[in-house]
Amino acid sequence: MLNIHRIGPSKYSPTRSRIIVHEGVVTTVATASVKSQSLYEQAQDALTNIDLHLAEVGTDKSNVLMVMIYLSDISQKSEFNRAWDEWVDRENLPLRACIGAGLEEADLVELVVTAATEGN
Amino acid sequence: MLNIHRIGPSKYSPTRSRIIVHEGVVTTVATASVKSQSLYEQAQDALTNIDLHLAEVGTDKSNVLMVMIYLSDISQKSEFNRAWDEWVDRENLPLRACIGAGLEEADLVELVVTAATEGN
Amino acid sequence: MLNIHRIGPSKYSPTRSRIIVHEGVVTTVATASVKSQSLYEQAQDALTNIDLHLAEVGTDKSNVLMVMIYLSDISQKSEFNRAWDEWVDRENLPLRACIGAGLEEADLVELVVTAATEGN
Repeated sequence: MLNIHRIGPSKYSPTRSRIIVHEGVVTTVATASVKSQSLYEQAQDALTNIDLHLAEVGTDKSNVLMVMIYLSDISQKSEFNRAWDEWVDRENLPLRACIGAGLEEADLVELVVTAATEGN
Repeated sequence: MLNIHRIGPSKYSPTRSRIIVHEGVVTTVATASVKSQSLYEQAQDALTNIDLHLAEVGTDKSNVLMVMIYLSDISQKSEFNRAWDEWVDRENLPLRACIGAGLEEADLVELVVTAATEGN
Repeated sequence: MLNIHRIGPSKYSPTRSRIIVHEGVVTTVATASVKSQSLYEQAQDALTNIDLHLAEVGTDKSNVLMVMIYLSDISQKSEFNRAWDEWVDRENLPLRACIGAGLEEADLVELVVTAATEGN
């Protein structure tokens, strides 16, 4: 048996996981739950979903390693940054990269996050 | 000596590897071998290439952790999903994210996959 | 205490790290320092910044695992490849993937790199 912990499925599909834990690293993906919002609101919503996913495996944003940020419109990056600055743990700054990319119709932001598990 | 196992080069270039193994994690990249196909067929082809790459290092899709999916046309995501649903190991669902991105001219899909090695 | 080493902040923002080290893996992000350059020159510049980041944590390009390359214009990939071929350690070829993506206004290239730390 390998030491892979899979939590899911994703609420968006029965054929993918929502969270993967392997060798002390959690990886998870989130978008906003409510798609009719502005980018700023979707960013807050998606970051909250990240918090919820991390809590499911007993860790939190203080342990986030890297956040890969995909925006449907890179020219609105400052709106994402506003939500980021309110969310981020200033004592434990993650690495991040942010690019413009094609997303599902109503999604303005998608996040892929890695974090350390507690006790790692 | 570090514990990095590099397999390659890639068939697309002599200056990059095809597979990297480090600390129990395999990372590999694949596109379709035959570029004249539909997205659905390219997706099947690229996923088969992932299977081949994983087999080269003694692991398989049951150990896949995360699949990052790049499509040249995100509006065709359902065609990719059709190939995904046929390919995926339902007992061991990977995490995934899928975005629209600029790819090499004839590529409709590119995959970056991480998996656990056996015995990890 | 978790074994996470954060170096930063990024010169682009006080709310993100420049380098993260966790469990023997370094992850870092770089763009070109001088944005008025051609893609070939920005690629050289960004790769040099990667070298500097890796040196900060006592490792170097011989230990690079994966390079994720984002170009603002994928049709100019050959210009990036020219800088890559001059930079890469031919005895230790990294895995890489390269996609077209929306970047900050003047950026033509952005790199996300993982590498093993020495003594790992």
